[in-house]
Amino acid sequence: MDGAPTSEFDTDTRVVEVTPSHYRAQLTDRWHIGDKPNGGYVLATIVRAMQLALHRRGNGAHPDPLTVTGHYLRPSEAGPADIHVDIARVGRQLATISATFSQMDRERVRAIATFGDLGAFAARGAPTDVALTAPDLPPVEQCVSRPEIGEGAVAPSIRDRMTSLLHPATGWISGQPTGRAEVVGWLGFADGREPDTLSMPLFADAMPPAVFELLARTGWVPTVELTVHVRGRPAPGLLRTVFRTRNLRDGLLEEDGEVWDADGRLVAQSRQLAMLLG
Amino acid sequence: MDGAPTSEFDTDTRVVEVTPSHYRAQLTDRWHIGDKPNGGYVLATIVRAMQLALHRRGNGAHPDPLTVTGHYLRPSEAGPADIHVDIARVGRQLATISATFSQMDRERVRAIATFGDLGAFAARGAPTDVALTAPDLPPVEQCVSRPEIGEGAVAPSIRDRMTSLLHPATGWISGQPTGRAEVVGWLGFADGREPDTLSMPLFADAMPPAVFELLARTGWVPTVELTVHVRGRPAPGLLRTVFRTRNLRDGLLEEDGEVWDADGRLVAQSRQLAMLLG
Repeated sequence: MDGAPTSEFDTDTRVVEVTPSHYRAQLTDRWHIGDKPNGGYVLATIVRAMQLALHRRGNGAHPDPLTVTGHYLRPSEAGPADIHVDIARVGRQLATISATFSQMDRERVRAIATFGDLGAFAARGAPTDVALTAPDLPPVEQCVSRPEIGEGAVAPSIRDRMTSLLHPATGWISGQPTGRAEVVGWLGFADGREPDTLSMPLFADAMPPAVFELLARTGWVPTVELTVHVRGRPAPGLLRTVFRTRNLRDGLLEEDGEVWDADGRLVAQSRQLAMLLG
Repeated sequence: MDGAPTSEFDTDTRVVEVTPSHYRAQLTDRWHIGDKPNGGYVLATIVRAMQLALHRRGNGAHPDPLTVTGHYLRPSEAGPADIHVDIARVGRQLATISATFSQMDRERVRAIATFGDLGAFAARGAPTDVALTAPDLPPVEQCVSRPEIGEGAVAPSIRDRMTSLLHPATGWISGQPTGRAEVVGWLGFADGREPDTLSMPLFADAMPPAVFELLARTGWVPTVELTVHVRGRPAPGLLRTVFRTRNLRDGLLEEDGEVWDADGRLVAQSRQLAMLLG
């Protein structure tokens, strides 16, 4: 650990080394959706253990999670967790590692990631060409807070940890879904902690499901698998995010996300496979 | 194995059980890009071992790879390979498994996948809503074969295994990239084997890189990580495919793919993180 964590996110994703391949974490109930920890929060905690394991092995040469995938086997719970990591390769530019995340001796998430140094990539002078554009989003004061509805009996505690401001045209909040499965909004930490590459798995899974705009229903939409590509170190400030579902088939759906930083750079792309219940 | 394989793909992805967690494969030189096996071919071979391992454990309840991720550590080679699998969970609807793929005692690919039964999902009567549309593609006879250029000194043998017909507007073939990183084309097996869910990892990585249309260069664009969502069992016939790169930054790029079947259904979505060399 680099000094004592101070932010809520750093405190609640803290991992302690037991051995170089075994870490302990303590999930809190402060990042809940309904009565379970948000899947992005869990994945960020796993990525933190991976980062620490690679830091030891690679002398800090691979600080950024470039691509992270988590498969969700069972819901996680607030409480202690064991993270076992297995380094596949530490190369010059890239390092790959996998992990299992278990609580009460039951595996909850299995993950794999490749890390690198986005600063070193930027210094290579290789081509850049971004055809995507940031979502159109009115100023913060015109946006609306994430509502408490549709998240189960327990109010989502993640609302108190994160600044989550939805585009005022978001329809499902007022019971009038637009019919287009797209959710656009500002995201950041409520305590002012700035975004970084480690927190991208959380941001990629922190918005209400885009499919709420398509179906006249809300409720838990469990993630089967979430992949996040972290493509830049974000500038300080709130993030512009957009999430879209364009392929819902037989209750299985993809959700594609983009995370843009305050300087207008696309810093993360995400895709998850999720499932409608019932 | 369910009977003797007959097609080139089934023959060349054949895996033999050593133990329930250890399989042997024999990569051939028939699916090369340049002088290395195509990454999708390698991933399909791994998925086959995973499928066999899950078949034993789950009594065939999870035949389809719903989401597969492979991280490419080093190039693979034609020759023998060891695939070690580790089942994370076998549930009622879903089963998750990870694998390492090694040759000459060096790990080349690490992978994870969640399987399920797309037929059972279809029978649930859950909602379907697909906002994407199939790429516009002229009839086969108006399309052009994948050229031999830009793939290294050795002609890509994968050309002889697959029907790969590019949209006639593809610019880089004639040295005139369009400036828009999109490649559209028909894909299928040259020997007439029909596509299935197992072959989707191959189809998701078999087209020339879309970034060829953006940069006035060709050559190997190594995959760091490839994720394939298999969303439907394809109908017989050629597949319509489209691959786009919309986020090239500092030589790292995403490539998003769609695979549509002959009935006009979106049967797979893919995304890879790849890297420009030098």
